[in-house]
Amino acid sequence: MAREAGVSAPTVSKVLNGRADVAPATRTRVEELLRAHGYRRRRAEASRSPLIDLVFHELESAWAMEVIRGVENVARDAGLSVVLSESAGRLTPGRTWADQVAARRPHGVVLVLSGLDESQRALLTSRSIPFVVMDPAGDPGADVPSIGATNWQGGLAATRHLVELGHRRIGAITGPSRMMCSRARIDGYRAALETAGLPVEQDLIRPGDFHHETGYRRGLELLRRPDRPTAVFAGNDLQALGLYEAARELGLRIPEDLSVVGFDDLPVTRLVGPPLTTVRQPLTEMAEAAAKLVLDLAREEGTPTATRVELATSLVVRSSTGEPPAV
Amino acid sequence: MAREAGVSAPTVSKVLNGRADVAPATRTRVEELLRAHGYRRRRAEASRSPLIDLVFHELESAWAMEVIRGVENVARDAGLSVVLSESAGRLTPGRTWADQVAARRPHGVVLVLSGLDESQRALLTSRSIPFVVMDPAGDPGADVPSIGATNWQGGLAATRHLVELGHRRIGAITGPSRMMCSRARIDGYRAALETAGLPVEQDLIRPGDFHHETGYRRGLELLRRPDRPTAVFAGNDLQALGLYEAARELGLRIPEDLSVVGFDDLPVTRLVGPPLTTVRQPLTEMAEAAAKLVLDLAREEGTPTATRVELATSLVVRSSTGEPPAV
Repeated sequence: MAREAGVSAPTVSKVLNGRADVAPATRTRVEELLRAHGYRRRRAEASRSPLIDLVFHELESAWAMEVIRGVENVARDAGLSVVLSESAGRLTPGRTWADQVAARRPHGVVLVLSGLDESQRALLTSRSIPFVVMDPAGDPGADVPSIGATNWQGGLAATRHLVELGHRRIGAITGPSRMMCSRARIDGYRAALETAGLPVEQDLIRPGDFHHETGYRRGLELLRRPDRPTAVFAGNDLQALGLYEAARELGLRIPEDLSVVGFDDLPVTRLVGPPLTTVRQPLTEMAEAAAKLVLDLAREEGTPTATRVELATSLVVRSSTGEPPAV
Repeated sequence: MAREAGVSAPTVSKVLNGRADVAPATRTRVEELLRAHGYRRRRAEASRSPLIDLVFHELESAWAMEVIRGVENVARDAGLSVVLSESAGRLTPGRTWADQVAARRPHGVVLVLSGLDESQRALLTSRSIPFVVMDPAGDPGADVPSIGATNWQGGLAATRHLVELGHRRIGAITGPSRMMCSRARIDGYRAALETAGLPVEQDLIRPGDFHHETGYRRGLELLRRPDRPTAVFAGNDLQALGLYEAARELGLRIPEDLSVVGFDDLPVTRLVGPPLTTVRQPLTEMAEAAAKLVLDLAREEGTPTATRVELATSLVVRSSTGEPPAV
């Protein structure tokens, strides 16, 4: 049969053993031949372990815990346990990882901010192991089932809130431009200014990377300007807290001298002084939705139609926003 | 054989199938008879899955992520994956949990702040699945291998730091009195005062529960006193942040009017204003040590000698402590 497929016997053996180091086209050809020769894989349902795999791009993420909790909730209700792994900063998990997953046969895989390469996808698909990307960054592949959040709406709501309080000079700190969620948030900010008839001043939009330190440095740049903004949309919560530090250093009070809005609603935002007005991403609910979708796909056993669901963000008003200072 | 053991056949079957709902004495009797009749369990090593189980008392814990990272580090180096579960607020994980663990045969189990009941211990022991308690609360059973931290030393170092800055009226907020770590920290606080020749004023020691809200309420009580303390050892970081809020509400500046020391060194302590002086518990290292210990036990396959390791805490001085205000 190896000859018929035009491949070596070891390659057929690799396909049978579910190894990842086989080119997708080769795998497909071999599996077609196996089917033609009457080989049937055991039905996946019967041989699945009571596990869901949850894979993080990096566990360092400030909101990893919210995601773990969501997947854990769904797994517990379904009588499953969660296997946690980290793709350790690589954009796709390593080969060993895919082989391990294929060997343990979980009900499905939830990937956080992390894609799969073609051979990994082919391997999981050939084993009927479905996967869903939980992707707050908003940039999944075209045909990958994914759960995101309404980032554009969030940026719009954050900025509208500031406009409605009376602010006219509103700065912004962006996230990395390669992340779609970051672009969407800033586009929402722009739309809020434009629909309010306010100018979008390019000088007041500073490039960030979603880290605390950058919020501090970009904050100092914005707040040291003679015509400093009276409010800043900080792009995310960590940058908002960096901005807090910059304001403290310059002797500016929040919200009396400066209003600040974050994005994410990390647990820490309730604990800081003053508690932060922010846009809530429903991270736990997003993770729950991703885990439920993957279990649905496991039950249906079919190829999923591409699914992209965005859950709603919402503005949470706390104490870091108020009217602009009287001039 | 069931008759010989004085038990029912279904009970023998339960023991063979590794179910948890068998009295420990019964299980021991049945297993002794099985051995006497020449039954041997397969060597554990051969049949182990490439997994480590990590069980939390509750995932809500602010430091759960630090622990996950530590276990994940050790697991990755050993080519293992981490299965995460939550005992959901119960003091021991549920029966279903123990059965699932026995069925998946991990290399070992790391329990966080969570014990096992007698039948669960017997079940894991009978399957050669070792377990270690990672226990920052400092209260494991007498013969359970566990990794903790030097809480008493930490309370001592925190309070000495305040004494050395010149503070004479130093308040404290405790944790729950049922937790040994809480008692140890406050005993360290007392020892620091006594060795410095300062009085221990019972009125300045307020009962807490390690939550933010309690830090706020106990903080208001302490700071509204006419003879308010110039410094407070807050028991943990969350209570310290609650105390920040109380100080803000009363218009007291940190550290000019009030010095504050926390305990734990959560990531958030670097982000708050001002950054918090605190006692670092090396949570990631503690989790790594627990995971390494459990893998050592798995290799040796013997009954562990009781092991209690405490890793050192250390004072991290940031900006929330300074000299007392001039009177």
